[in-house]
Order: sequence, then C-alpha cells, then structure tokens
Amino acid sequence: MTYNAQTIFEFELPSSRMLCYFDADCKKITELHPGRKLIFVTDSNLFRLYGKYFDGKHVIVVKAGEEHKTQVSADVIIHHLIQYEADQDSLLIGFGGGVITDLVGYAASIYKRGIPFAFIPTSLMAMADAAIGGKNGINHGAVKNAVGTIRQPESILYDFDVLQTLPAEEWVNGIAEVIKYACITDPVLFEMLEKFDMHQVQTDFSLAAMLIERCLKIKMNIVIQDEKDKGLRKKLNFGHTLGHAIEILHDLPHGHAVSIGMVAACSLSEKFTDLHFSEALRIVQLLSRYHLPVDIETDHAKIFEVLKQDKKRKGEEMHFILLKKIGVAEIYPLSMDYIESHLKEII
Amino acid sequence: MTYNAQTIFEFELPSSRMLCYFDADCKKITELHPGRKLIFVTDSNLFRLYGKYFDGKHVIVVKAGEEHKTQVSADVIIHHLIQYEADQDSLLIGFGGGVITDLVGYAASIYKRGIPFAFIPTSLMAMADAAIGGKNGINHGAVKNAVGTIRQPESILYDFDVLQTLPAEEWVNGIAEVIKYACITDPVLFEMLEKFDMHQVQTDFSLAAMLIERCLKIKMNIVIQDEKDKGLRKKLNFGHTLGHAIEILHDLPHGHAVSIGMVAACSLSEKFTDLHFSEALRIVQLLSRYHLPVDIETDHAKIFEVLKQDKKRKGEEMHFILLKKIGVAEIYPLSMDYIESHLKEII
Repeated sequence: MTYNAQTIFEFELPSSRMLCYFDADCKKITELHPGRKLIFVTDSNLFRLYGKYFDGKHVIVVKAGEEHKTQVSADVIIHHLIQYEADQDSLLIGFGGGVITDLVGYAASIYKRGIPFAFIPTSLMAMADAAIGGKNGINHGAVKNAVGTIRQPESILYDFDVLQTLPAEEWVNGIAEVIKYACITDPVLFEMLEKFDMHQVQTDFSLAAMLIERCLKIKMNIVIQDEKDKGLRKKLNFGHTLGHAIEILHDLPHGHAVSIGMVAACSLSEKFTDLHFSEALRIVQLLSRYHLPVDIETDHAKIFEVLKQDKKRKGEEMHFILLKKIGVAEIYPLSMDYIESHLKEII
Repeated sequence: MTYNAQTIFEFELPSSRMLCYFDADCKKITELHPGRKLIFVTDSNLFRLYGKYFDGKHVIVVKAGEEHKTQVSADVIIHHLIQYEADQDSLLIGFGGGVITDLVGYAASIYKRGIPFAFIPTSLMAMADAAIGGKNGINHGAVKNAVGTIRQPESILYDFDVLQTLPAEEWVNGIAEVIKYACITDPVLFEMLEKFDMHQVQTDFSLAAMLIERCLKIKMNIVIQDEKDKGLRKKLNFGHTLGHAIEILHDLPHGHAVSIGMVAACSLSEKFTDLHFSEALRIVQLLSRYHLPVDIETDHAKIFEVLKQDKKRKGEEMHFILLKKIGVAEIYPLSMDYIESHLKEII
C-alpha cells in the first residue's frame, strides 16, 4: 500500500464524530477550516524546529517534556486562550507528541466548559496511540494523569513528513504501543512486526503509516464501543499498570516502562490465564528486537506505593490486563494483597 | 403542601440519572450510600458552623468565598483525594453554597478523569439553582467560570433545616434566581412571588421548599432537553450576561448583579422583543420587593471589556436572553458593536 494522497477516515463515536485526515499536509490545515480562528499549541522543542510553520498563526508555546504536563502548563494555555478571545467557534490545535495532545485535549475540555480541539501528532507514540481516543490529562505530583477528562478531538491530521525530525529514541518509545496493539488484538500485526525491524520502520514512512493506520483503527474500534472506559477499553492498559509505576519511579520514557510492564503482564498471564511460555518468549523477543528494555532492577515497596494511587485500582482489587494468547487479552482482577506479596516475582 | 417526609425525585438525563432526596435529613447521608467511601468538601465558614456534622467523616475544608473559587482550591481538593485514595467507587459530596457546588463538581469531573459526586446545598442560591444541572467551574483571574465542565451530580440532598444558619443577605442573593425562573418560564410562580415577601420566605421553610421545588423542576426540565447548552438552556442566562460583568467590576453578590442584569435585559426587551412597559415595571417592583438592587452607577467601557470575555459571545455577536412577556423568554443575538455603543442606555 502506498501513502501519497490524502485519505479521510471518519469515526462515529457515541458523543461525537471524529475525522482523520490521513497522510495529509499539515500546511493545509488552514484550508481545512475556513473562517475559523485556529490557535496552535506546541512545545518549545518543536517551536524551534518548526518556527516557520507557525509564522502568521496564533501559537501558544509550552515547555517541552513530561515534567511540564501539569496544571501550570494548562493554566498557561488558558491564559492565552483568554487573550486570544477564543470561543466555541475557535479550534485549538495541538501540534506535538503525547504530552502536547494530552495537555491540549485537557485545556480545551475545561476552557469555557469545553471548546473544540484537533491534533497534528508529531511522534510515533502520539500518532499510534496518544492522540487517539479522547483521554487527556495532566500529572499531579507523582501521580500520572491524576487529572483529566475524556473528550474527543474533532479531527486528527496525520502528516508523516513530520516524522523526519523524530529522534531515534522516540521511534523506540512509540513502537512499544504498536507492539501493545499487536499483543492484545492483532496476531497478524504481531507477525508483521516480527518480520520488520526498528531501522526499517524508521526509514520507510509508508511502512510506519501502515502500522499507524492499523493501530488507529484498532483503537477507534475499541473506543467506539467503550468510550467511557467501563470495560473493553481497559484492555488498552496492557503493560500500563506496572508500566506507569516504573515510569514514575525510574523516570523512564513511557514506551520503555510499558515494555517492562508488558513483560510483567506476560509473567502474570503464564500463571493466571495460561499464556504459553513460547508466546511470552515471542513477546519478549519482539520487544528486544525493537530495542525496548524487558526488565529492571527496582524497589518493590516503592512500586507498590505508586500502584496504590493508580486510577485502575478498585478498592482492594486492581484490574490487570492479561493475555490468553498473542492477540487475545482479558481483564483480570488481582487483590492488592496478592500484588504486594508477589511483586518480586512479577517484575 | 407540607414538606415533612423525604420525597425522591428522579431525573433521566441524556448522560446519566440524577436523584433528588427532597426534604431529607443530611445526617442520613451515610445510610443512603452503604459501603461507599464518602468524602465531604465544605468551606471554612460552614465547617465552623457544622463541625460536629463532620465528626468521623472524611472532610476537605477549602477557604470560603467566591475569591477562592479558583484552581488553587481545586488543587487542594485533588491533593486530598489522592491522600484519601479516592476512586470510581468513592463519592465526593459538596456541602455548601454555589461556590462549593461549582468547585466540587469541577474537581470531581477532572480527578482521575471523573469520579461520582453529590451535593448537599446549604444556601437558597445553591438549592434553587447552582447545585442543579451539572455546570461547574472556577474563575480564572477576572473571568468568571472561565474553566469548568458540564457533568451531572449523582444526587442532590435537600435538607431545609440547614437554611436556619443562612444569613439574611444570602436569602436575598438566592431569591434573585427564583425570580429569574419566574420571569423566563413561570408566570404562576411570578404571581406567587408577588403575593409573598422576603420575610415570609425566610421564616417559612415550607414556603421556601415549595419555591425551590418549582425551580428545581423548571431547571431539570430544561437541562434534560439541552444538557450541553446548545440552545434552550441558554434561556437560564437571563440577566446573567450583563450581571456577570457587573458582578466582576463591582464585586457584588451574584444575586444582586443578576438583578441589575435582569433589569437591563428588560430594557433591551422593551426595545427588541416588545416586552410591555407594565410587565417590565412588575419585574422591577418584584426585585425591589425582595430587597434586590435594580440599577448601578458603572464604568461602561470596563463593562464592555469584561463582556468581550464572556463564554456566551459568538465571534462578533453575543446572545442575550430577552423577554416577550413574563414567563416567555427568547434568545436574541446582538452585535458587539451595538452593545458597545448602546451600553449607557442599557445599564
């Protein structure tokens, strides 16, 4: 499949309609929204790289980095939205990676009780996962995504040319989510990933686009069925429960932490959902093939302290996503007591 | 009608079901929610008055007053929710007036992407208006409710005994919203209000409860039809557009500002929607009868500056709610230019 013309995917959600301008040109964003006030939000790194793109546009620049995914940055955006006199007819556009899409979706959802927003994701992580599905949020102290809402972007514009500026480590970071989608729902995608490698994905944008399209459609299919995260959608948390705790404690990139979290979830799956050892091994090998870490030396007591704050905790239980086999995930409740006493065997 | 037994009203909204425990006993709140973690939020004034009520309960106390309806107070609540390990099975209960209900609804809507919340309104303003309908929010600098969401409480518990501690000026403040409901939809309520006076409402809780029940049902009927404020619901803004601007500039109580705003809207209504002068006069007289101000010396240029920031502004137009007659309101667009040049005749 070649990606060289603009394709529009349309998704009907319970709450709204979402458009994807796939393989589009981000320079054409103004033409796509005639007569509307467009206000861009990007981070300081991207503003340096793409300064010219923002010439003559309303733009709000926030500090780059996960450590700035906070209420302080949201307040900066809101302050500027007031200055720009943004209203329901305006469109707030997040141009950036997962931190920017999370932050912009959140700010747009609370400013004036909600204005429309859209994304131009610039990283593999944002294109394959973070920009999709309407979950947004900020961190509060050590608690990741402690604050946020679920509200859908009006549109997502995919311009694969922006991947040219993506640093190598961000490709590795993003591929972890692609592998996650393969593990939980798509054995064919898993096999494809086994055939390629990091270098090929990183240099052949039509391959990257094909992987991203597959993730986009898997995720939207799930979100359409369970936008508010009551059941099915929880499967997207595969690797994320322990992953989040590791990410916070060790200050790891999200994809690295999720990779270690997926290996831990495989170890639980062998015990509770009869995942065959050979399949768990294929997963560990695939993660390694894409330069992702598969274990870590950690402080189990501290990990448990962070886990206790997880949104996924329900009272004395926590729901883990385990695999029955590659491509088939299920939600599995484990008691906090079990987790506390067995954490050393899991990670 | 006597109010001496608990009545439950049930409302089916597009997004959720909302229960009202009407004429209930706030001491029984724990029995209403067996097995759930209840976390109360109140303000420093009410905590002084009702300290005993909170004995043995989880309670978060925020500073009293509209000037503390800010992100700082929301952050205090979120900080404590994390400490209490609140989750989707918890219930955050706002015990207070309109500032508390706005703040608690907002904090509950963004904490962990939304946890359930309920209200025990303690003022006439909160009982008749602020606690109802799911609009929540905080102020950002001079911009009132610049930030917030629309999300429904799970329940509202009305305990009219708490009105015993309501200061006289808060009765006056709250009655402005009751008069608003009469003006926009309910000529019978308007006539009832003409027969009573502030002293009677303030001393006869069964009369107050009857007025509150009427407002509750009017508002829920509108919110059920237009939860997301796309059309019909805008009628609830009668008196609030200019009212908000006056409230900010003159630091007036909300009800006082809305009263002046309603008189201004009557003046526009005489011009644009043929409200008869005799009806406008009845409205002015009713407001005066309930000790509400009906005019103010103001700085029109500054009022216009604040108006420009209003959520109700749509580009170069602003939607005002005007009356055709008592009980019949309509949405009327006015250009920002017209408003700027005629503001002196309006207020």
